[in-house]
Amino acid sequence: MTSPAYDPNNIFAKILKGEIPSVKLYEDDDTLAFMDAMPQANGHLLVIPKVASRNLLDADPAVLTKLMPVVQKLAIAAKRAFEADGVTVAQFNEAAAGQTVHHLHFHIIPRHEGVPLKAHSGKMEDIEVLKANAEKIKAAL
Amino acid sequence: MTSPAYDPNNIFAKILKGEIPSVKLYEDDDTLAFMDAMPQANGHLLVIPKVASRNLLDADPAVLTKLMPVVQKLAIAAKRAFEADGVTVAQFNEAAAGQTVHHLHFHIIPRHEGVPLKAHSGKMEDIEVLKANAEKIKAAL
Repeated sequence: MTSPAYDPNNIFAKILKGEIPSVKLYEDDDTLAFMDAMPQANGHLLVIPKVASRNLLDADPAVLTKLMPVVQKLAIAAKRAFEADGVTVAQFNEAAAGQTVHHLHFHIIPRHEGVPLKAHSGKMEDIEVLKANAEKIKAAL
Repeated sequence: MTSPAYDPNNIFAKILKGEIPSVKLYEDDDTLAFMDAMPQANGHLLVIPKVASRNLLDADPAVLTKLMPVVQKLAIAAKRAFEADGVTVAQFNEAAAGQTVHHLHFHIIPRHEGVPLKAHSGKMEDIEVLKANAEKIKAAL
């Protein structure tokens, strides 16, 4: 089985090119972190590499070496920012696994005891809520 | 908030010490991969570092550098072995996020279109099924 090709017009590629907006949390030469626009819990964020790969299956391992310390840093900050009891980290490969945007990304979701994740409703969160949550996370970085 | 301490008697620490058995898939100086004994889908496996850390929140970033290429390799092999449509990769931090064993681990779960993950039933899978699945994954490595 070969992987499907990378689509350079996916939403995250457009965010990287600045063609569509995002609420940014962190950026360096290799990595971008921003708020998930359809959060499954308050503070749900995404970490992506700047180079093109569809998901983990076709990624250059060197990309992971740069990406994972940022995933870790953001997970720690998100937990602190929301005084969370835990953090879910998830990375989906292909639609059967729940991947909806085909640019490698890690979900980071602050969790509170007894609060289940919201389903992906397809409903965009209020931009002011996303911005306020982003400020909390940035303050905890 | 400080993280709770690492418990050196957790189940994965015991697996690493050889005190309790596991169905192994891959091992190197830093990393071990083995079948999840309570799989949420056929082929559900775990990748862990050999050094002690409770989860991602307290891990040495250098550990991730060694761990993630193995996570990637096993994700690719598990997808191939089960002719899966996708792969879920998940890493849970603390009980509120679903972490039940407090030694850093990544879940790798082959996914098929339209087949939801089974809930954690607490029921152990038949050891012969786990061994047969392990052979498939090892053949695809």
